[in-house]
Amino acid sequence: MKLDNSLTADNINQNLLNIEYAVRGPILQRALQIERELTKGVPKPFERVVRANIGDCHALGQKPITFIRQVVALAACPALADAADVPADVKQRAREILSACTKSSVGAYSPSAGLRAVRARAAQYIAARDGGAPASSDDVFLGSGASDLIKSVLTMFVEPVDGKPPAVMIPVPQYPLFSGTLSELGLRRADYFLDEDNDWALQTCELERCWREASEHSHVRALVVINPGNPTGQVLTRENMEEIIKFAYTRNLFLLADEVYQENIVCKPFHSFKKVMHEMGAPYSSMELASFLTCSKGWAAECGLRAGYVELVRLQPRVAAAFSTARAVMQCPSVLGQCILDCVMKPPAPGEPSYPLFAEELGEIQRVLTERAETAYETFNSIPGYFCNPIDGSMFAYPRITIPEAAQAAAKELNMSPDEFYCLRLLEETGVCVVPGTGFGQLPGTFHFRTTILHPRDEFQHMMDSIRRFHLNFLDLYS
Amino acid sequence: MKLDNSLTADNINQNLLNIEYAVRGPILQRALQIERELTKGVPKPFERVVRANIGDCHALGQKPITFIRQVVALAACPALADAADVPADVKQRAREILSACTKSSVGAYSPSAGLRAVRARAAQYIAARDGGAPASSDDVFLGSGASDLIKSVLTMFVEPVDGKPPAVMIPVPQYPLFSGTLSELGLRRADYFLDEDNDWALQTCELERCWREASEHSHVRALVVINPGNPTGQVLTRENMEEIIKFAYTRNLFLLADEVYQENIVCKPFHSFKKVMHEMGAPYSSMELASFLTCSKGWAAECGLRAGYVELVRLQPRVAAAFSTARAVMQCPSVLGQCILDCVMKPPAPGEPSYPLFAEELGEIQRVLTERAETAYETFNSIPGYFCNPIDGSMFAYPRITIPEAAQAAAKELNMSPDEFYCLRLLEETGVCVVPGTGFGQLPGTFHFRTTILHPRDEFQHMMDSIRRFHLNFLDLYS
Repeated sequence: MKLDNSLTADNINQNLLNIEYAVRGPILQRALQIERELTKGVPKPFERVVRANIGDCHALGQKPITFIRQVVALAACPALADAADVPADVKQRAREILSACTKSSVGAYSPSAGLRAVRARAAQYIAARDGGAPASSDDVFLGSGASDLIKSVLTMFVEPVDGKPPAVMIPVPQYPLFSGTLSELGLRRADYFLDEDNDWALQTCELERCWREASEHSHVRALVVINPGNPTGQVLTRENMEEIIKFAYTRNLFLLADEVYQENIVCKPFHSFKKVMHEMGAPYSSMELASFLTCSKGWAAECGLRAGYVELVRLQPRVAAAFSTARAVMQCPSVLGQCILDCVMKPPAPGEPSYPLFAEELGEIQRVLTERAETAYETFNSIPGYFCNPIDGSMFAYPRITIPEAAQAAAKELNMSPDEFYCLRLLEETGVCVVPGTGFGQLPGTFHFRTTILHPRDEFQHMMDSIRRFHLNFLDLYS
Repeated sequence: MKLDNSLTADNINQNLLNIEYAVRGPILQRALQIERELTKGVPKPFERVVRANIGDCHALGQKPITFIRQVVALAACPALADAADVPADVKQRAREILSACTKSSVGAYSPSAGLRAVRARAAQYIAARDGGAPASSDDVFLGSGASDLIKSVLTMFVEPVDGKPPAVMIPVPQYPLFSGTLSELGLRRADYFLDEDNDWALQTCELERCWREASEHSHVRALVVINPGNPTGQVLTRENMEEIIKFAYTRNLFLLADEVYQENIVCKPFHSFKKVMHEMGAPYSSMELASFLTCSKGWAAECGLRAGYVELVRLQPRVAAAFSTARAVMQCPSVLGQCILDCVMKPPAPGEPSYPLFAEELGEIQRVLTERAETAYETFNSIPGYFCNPIDGSMFAYPRITIPEAAQAAAKELNMSPDEFYCLRLLEETGVCVVPGTGFGQLPGTFHFRTTILHPRDEFQHMMDSIRRFHLNFLDLYS
């Protein structure tokens, strides 16, 4: 009789054991458990869990953009076009997309990189965004959201160089997709710290420090920059971007620009890395670049429908070919996802039948983001022991919190980090589910949490009040 | 001035350079080029390209199942439910799925493993299929098609054991997803040959030979079995499956059952590996297993919508947890894809409003498959120098072809394999695009190609006639 499994914790790919993804980690698991307890009538000091762990706008009550959903419905079921009361431009868009599909069915495979027509639409979007910088649909690869594409791009760097293991520079704090994917791929991470005291800027001296230290034992291949920041919410200044590009050039690093929040802007202007490189001219305008966008973010916020693109510019032809072949093995991204990307790349324009409703929906989404960003900034900075930078973009706040020594000692006894302890107490006492800074990284000795900010107004106010009340009690208890 | 790219063919992940995926390889690229030439009026000895390179049913003219598309449309755009003329059970199903989504939006993230309700539906489907063998929704993970999930499962085996590099046993011929993914992951492949003279059976002595040879320099971790076969189209007998299970048990191999064509059955009964293991009793009924299904195949054939599941049974809890975390980093599969899987797992039943149309559509799909499988079998075996096993299932034929010595010499001069040369000539002379056996593997000295068989009747007959005429000319030319 066999006693052992063939696949065990000892002989499984050990990289998989090192993956951590706090956004869907232990705090969320406990929150889900509490939700079940509430359903069963277990008494709690609150009525409901407020999920603020993940940037999932529809789950927070944001309404889908009508135009997108109507186009998707007609692309899936063209027969409904006659019966359903939808505007002419919706029918027209669905027809356009279907004419790009083999035998007019979204159920046929598309090319691996996506439908040619949708890639062309993305190139037009990019060209319009970047002014003079040219964009080619050949450089645009569609995927199942940015995560899928970021993993494919990072996979290219898994190769020792001159006998040294490869490393990738990522910010701290960072979105744990990066740390998790580097773990899975067995790529070393080289952490550079964002400057919290300077609106989370990337300081060149810190980039240099990170590169030098990492280069002692590894070959640094690539630099990841997240702009607008996640979890940090800053939008980089143009000057800072130029410094970053010069640094990447000097150290011959491949730049990965996670720009998925480029449509979630509160105030400061967003510049794409591609545009800034182009405007800097030679030699920077000939650097390689990967820039990512996803329909899960921006005003579409269609997280569940998995669509995005990467623009890969100035790759060597053999490198681009290898990337394409690796993608082809996975067939193609969802064609309905590609429909959504098509709508995001070219939303209804003034004069078109769907425009008035679209403009209203878009305006509401932008109004909510701006208002919540301001409220979160003001509220957090009004709580004793809290500090929060202005939220320029994205949909998160990442306040720094003071945790009393006694609370840190209590955390240690439970074998938890102080911020994990803090977030778990917050969840247990108020039902508010945020993610501890440990999941994103932070300067040693500092503590943070990430919260989404896009809840409905009442819910958001309830959350802010809950956090304030909790923190004051927490200070009382542990001071 | 910088002269070099940071990412080159020399320093890119070398595994990516080794990936080959013939299904979307050079023959298809040439076919696409010819299509463009035809559009431009370049004269050819044929009017159109017949694509038979990929199992893409909708691209071959198969109509989508109405129930599926109506459910997807209403899930995407619930407002259409009032206006549109759709049956009550469609509305009911869309409501059920939406009630499983956070805030009733398919645009909210689902859990990483998929919506609990859809996983439960899959478990019910599996339990019904397998008679007495129990199925748990906890074991079902949803993904973006089977390819995505197969890659995730294979990733678990990337770990040397006792200092030996890991290897995975795959059939020859095989579907090149496996060889391509093993290349990307840096896993060694251990090829076992299917017995073409015995209806593509897996002979235990050949499995043993493969294992012994591979074990000299590597640690064999897993055994891949494709049933129904791709490209081979056989359905394994129950006796053969028992032999395979015993072999896997003896050698402590993890069994990966690619059972994606389980709903594409012509005649012979399909047994799942899970059912056979269960019925064999101890110790086989306690073996680990991964079984894959996709909505791209079966009667749904929704290739473009990317949905599937893996059932992972009897994994160690820490192994299952590592798999879950790695999947979580990629967020979740498309929720509209999950809708489709829900429909496939529980199609309309007798008495429900959508049933009559569904039964009619399903009947037509099954009738076409049966008829084409018989015609292909008879036609290929009537061509001099062709041999083709009966097509029990899947949607492919994989005939063995005789290629004259002179043609082999001509191929060699062009640095091509004889079957690549044959398929390229076939394409250039008739417009028929099939995939050479080299892309799937074959016994040295034998030559094959894979063709899909699901074209409309006239197109199929045109293809069969073209192949016959081409082959007779080819024999004349090179004999």
